[in-house]
Order: sequence, then C-alpha cells, then structure tokens
Amino acid sequence: MSRYAVIMAGGSGTRLWPLSRRRRPKQLLRIVEGRSLLRAAYDRLTLVLPPESIHVVALEEHLPDMARELPEVPRSNLIGEPMGRDTANAVALAAALLHARDPRAVMGVFTADQVIRPSDRFAEVVRRGYAAAEEHPQALITFGVKPTEPHTGYGYIEHGEPAGAGVWRVRTFKEKPDLETARRYVASGRFYWNSGMFVWRTETILDHLRRLLPETHAAVQRLAACWKEADGARLAAEIYPSLRKISIDYAVLERSEGVLVVEMALEWLDVGHWTALPAVVGADPDGNTCALARSAMVASRGNIVVAEDEHLIALVGVEDLVVVRSGDATLICHREHLHRLKELTAELETTYEGLYG
Amino acid sequence: MSRYAVIMAGGSGTRLWPLSRRRRPKQLLRIVEGRSLLRAAYDRLTLVLPPESIHVVALEEHLPDMARELPEVPRSNLIGEPMGRDTANAVALAAALLHARDPRAVMGVFTADQVIRPSDRFAEVVRRGYAAAEEHPQALITFGVKPTEPHTGYGYIEHGEPAGAGVWRVRTFKEKPDLETARRYVASGRFYWNSGMFVWRTETILDHLRRLLPETHAAVQRLAACWKEADGARLAAEIYPSLRKISIDYAVLERSEGVLVVEMALEWLDVGHWTALPAVVGADPDGNTCALARSAMVASRGNIVVAEDEHLIALVGVEDLVVVRSGDATLICHREHLHRLKELTAELETTYEGLYG
Repeated sequence: MSRYAVIMAGGSGTRLWPLSRRRRPKQLLRIVEGRSLLRAAYDRLTLVLPPESIHVVALEEHLPDMARELPEVPRSNLIGEPMGRDTANAVALAAALLHARDPRAVMGVFTADQVIRPSDRFAEVVRRGYAAAEEHPQALITFGVKPTEPHTGYGYIEHGEPAGAGVWRVRTFKEKPDLETARRYVASGRFYWNSGMFVWRTETILDHLRRLLPETHAAVQRLAACWKEADGARLAAEIYPSLRKISIDYAVLERSEGVLVVEMALEWLDVGHWTALPAVVGADPDGNTCALARSAMVASRGNIVVAEDEHLIALVGVEDLVVVRSGDATLICHREHLHRLKELTAELETTYEGLYG
Repeated sequence: MSRYAVIMAGGSGTRLWPLSRRRRPKQLLRIVEGRSLLRAAYDRLTLVLPPESIHVVALEEHLPDMARELPEVPRSNLIGEPMGRDTANAVALAAALLHARDPRAVMGVFTADQVIRPSDRFAEVVRRGYAAAEEHPQALITFGVKPTEPHTGYGYIEHGEPAGAGVWRVRTFKEKPDLETARRYVASGRFYWNSGMFVWRTETILDHLRRLLPETHAAVQRLAACWKEADGARLAAEIYPSLRKISIDYAVLERSEGVLVVEMALEWLDVGHWTALPAVVGADPDGNTCALARSAMVASRGNIVVAEDEHLIALVGVEDLVVVRSGDATLICHREHLHRLKELTAELETTYEGLYG
C-alpha cells in the first residue's frame, strides 16, 4: 500500500474579503510569516511524503496560481474542479483519480485553512494516521484536534474505546455546540475538534460513497476514466452542476460505523475569519493586531488591521474594528458583524457587477 | 474711498487630515459641489467687487496653488506669509499693503472656511458692511451670523442699540459657551455667531494695531515699505518668527470701543471639521454621508465617508465613524474623537518623519 496526500484548497474565502477575492482564494494569501496557507500545508506534508505523492484539489481557475505556489508538485497532481461542490465531491474525485493510479492507495485528506504548529508533531500524528489506515483497511479515520478552549465554531467528535496508541473509536459526531455545551465537552476530556482531515484507503472511501452518495460515486468514476484526456475537463463542467453540495463529514463520516479518530495534540488555529488573526500573529498591549499594515493608533483598542502596502491606516478612538485594505477596496467591519460579510459581497456583486469581488 | 477684499486662506487644516495636508490646505479642497472653499469664497465676492480688488493672504508655500485656483486675480494680490501667525498678523500685513496702495482703502476681511448660501444674500450683506464702514470711518465692523442652533463651537457677539438698517452696536464678545449658555443666547435674540469676517478702513485698523499690538504694527509697516522688492520675502522670513500668535478678535476687536456688527442672516456652515459635512452635502436615511467616495454599507449608521477615487470603502456593522481616504493614508476615527486628530498628526510626525503629514 502506498501513501498519498490530498490538500483541499477549494473555497472562495468570502470571509476574508477584501484580501481574498474570487480570483485569489484564501489558501494563496501570504498571511502568516510571509507564506501562503497552501505553501505551509504543503511544507508540513513534505515531512511525511515526497512531492510527487502530494496532490491538491482546487477550483480549475485557481490551478495556475497553485502551480506557481508549489512548483515542486507535478502539474498532474493538481486536480481542478469546475466549480465548488463542497468536500464530499472533491474528496470523491481525488479518491477516484488516485484509485485509478494505484488501487492500493492510502489517501490522506488535509486542509489548508489553519496554522498548525509545530510541524514535526503534525508529521508524527499524520504518520500514525497512515499506519492506522494500513492496520484497519476498512476504517474511515479522522484526525481530532485536542481542544484548548470551548470553541463554538467547530464540530466536535466524541471518542469511545481505544483502538491503538493515540487512536480511538468514534462514538458520535456533534454539530457546532453552544458555549455551555462546548464547555462540558472540553471538561469531559472525551471530545476533539473535528479537523476536517482524514485518512483511508481509496477503496474504502469509494465503497462508502457508492453506498451513501451514489450519484457522486458514478460521476467521479466516469471522470476518472477520461481525466487525462481533453474530455475530462469538458465532462466535469457538464456533470458538476448537478452534483449535490454536501460535506464529506455529513455525507459519509457521520453516517458510517467503525470510524476511528487519531488524536492531534498541537496548536491548531483556523484562519478562516479575521478574528483568528490575533492568535496567529499576536496582539499589542492594547489588543490591536497589525498584519503587514503600516498603521498609527490613538486611543484605539482591540482592532485588527491588515494591509499590503505603505498606505497608512490611522485609527483614532475606535474599538473592535477589523480593517482590511487590499487592492481596490478597504473593509471596515465591527468584529461582531463579520458574519455579515456575505451580505456585503452579495451587495457588491449587485451594485458593482463583480468589480470588487 | 475704494473697496477691497482680503480672503484669509492661511491655516494648515489638521482637522481635515488626511484630505488636507501641509501642502494642501483646507481652502483648496474641492469638497463642496466640486469647488474649493477658496474658489467659492472668491466667486461670492465677485458679486460685490472686481477681481483686481480681491486679495488673498495665505502661506507663501501655498501661493502657487492659490494662483492656479484663482487665475483671474492679479498675482500681486496674493499675499504670502512665511509662516502662520494667526489672524492678527495676517490682517495687519494685508492692511498695511492695501494702505500703502490706497490710503483711503476700505478693507473687508473674509474667511474661506464656510459654505455660505445663498450668494446673493451674502453680497447684499457685504455691501451693507462696506457702506457702514464708509459711514462710520472710525468704526471696526464685524459680521454677525444669525444663529440657527445653540452651537458651542463658535464665539458669540451680543448686540446693543441699532446703528442703522441691519447694523448694531456691539455690547460684548463672548467666548465659546457651554450648551446651556448657548441656548440662552439664541433664545434671547440678542446674539450672533462671530463670523471672523470684518470690514473697516485700513487707516482705522492700523490705528488700533499701533495701540494694541505695536510690534506687529511696526513689523507690517517695515514689510509694506519693501514688499515688492526681493527684500520683502527675506525680511518677512526674518521678522515673522518673533511675532505674537494672536487672533484679530482677541488682539483688537474685544479690546476696542465702538465696534459695530452687521447682521448676516443666511446659511453659514463651517467645514472646519468632518462632522460638518452631513449638513453641507446631506445624509442618507441611515444618517450616512458620502462625499466623493465609492462606498458600500451593511448595517451601518451615522458614518461620514470621504474619498477621492474608485477605491471602495465598505462598512459593515459600524456607527458614527469618520472614514477619510486620501492619497497615501486612510483615517478611521470615531466622530466623538475627532478632537484627537492633532495627537495623531503629531504622532505621525514623530514616527514617520512627516511622510503622511
């Protein structure tokens, strides 16, 4: 059995507008220590696998930028989807393509949305995951992050009996909890954050998909058969719009027996929204966080300022704002209202016909 | 006796940073209906006087820009000061220069800090002022704006007995009052806002200056004697630093007897700070005011947004902010903290060595 990795780099990143745009997804932002999240995810995986075993699934239109970001990865390892159809279809397509290449493939699925530290600990846990998948060829295996706080933005995984060193049987998956419930979860010591990262044999996940998401299974089999020919892209563009938008967690993991969880005890910071930034890059004594920006502050607290050039952002007497300047737009959003960014980008789409999207 | 006008266009406009800068004073900002405040002040005065009778006092370094803004005004009518020394010295210099040209000059002093509407009403009041100065050659005459609200940002003038149609004797000058006092002033019907605009014979104001501000008087006499020669500017640069920084109101008006006030009953909007903008350009139903800016707003109220180009300013979930984007800087200031702008520009001076000043 051979090991492969698939980095999930789809998604549009509305929540990081205006730094992320349709044509510049979150994973390509050089937001942390001058490296893109995609590059960081790749660099971590090279501690475990050679470049030719690492794949990326992303929107077709983003592949040229992804290729520039990861020149070491063979171009054929970059798998383009014609449109976003959530993780179930992305995982299925990657599984079918890997399986066609190597029917004994063990496939790890990794995200590029987090800052994960330290890398060597990550590599150790990932190796344990691959070993567990090889030892339990019928199992679906998920990575569970040891929670450091009662975060209400993540799904949780409750573990049951042990199934090896650092590996447990999953008892249940829990939706994003309220704060009280999250506190109880964390206090119990039996819960992990659902990382959205997995490892399994391609044969195993495809079997589950055949059973639980038959249309997707049939579609990716058809696509895998002609992927390398010009027909592949054409067929994908034809098939994809009809596929059901659904996550792999919801479509498969939560509806299957015998799922295992590998414990991931490390720093795991989601940078899917701006308020995650202070934890990643650190805040000053007034609680202000500046990333890349040239700024000046008077009587201002708890602000997050992100910019990309020498344009000065000056704050006077403001609190808890997120200010992001990028290209042709500047966002000024109260941090309690970040969930309304989608409303904003939708309005921009209407008013300015995609000019700032 | 001949009539002349002097527009006071000095001042640095820190309160309108970053739109106003050291090298781009407030009076040159095309902030209202695409016209600069200087241009608007000049246009108003042309209803009363020919261009060759209109003068401007400004910082020497701003004269080239002022000349571009007012090509009709003879270059020799633009009077440059080497540095700002408040209105007493600016008025004194202009008075001495006019007096040297025409000892029987009647000099109106006008500001360029306000939006004044309608212009024909203004012209009528100004003509009445000149006529009063000709009728009362020994009098200092000020224009008093009929208050429309108990504004605490202006000085007030209490009038006494009538001295002609729309002209009154001044009883007292009052400092900026608190709200309660301002309400009482307005309710009494006896008070005007101090407009900072005046009219008098040059001989009369120079007599008062000789008595009350002898150093300034002596200085401007020396300067007037050699103004047209190359020596003028050199001597001004030498003398100016030692002059006392003081306003003409405080130095002369408030310390003199027999001051008259001409009633100015018209719309008089000070645009010396950003919060004045909504009254000038109007606000939308959510109380947001946009000047020049391309903006988008979600769940935001009471904001003032000023920008100069197609860069998008997007506000989400914020209230009562002043957002001004100009050139290489963006200001985000809570409107209750606008008085701290000076702190900010001072800090910028230190941190960035004048780069954004």
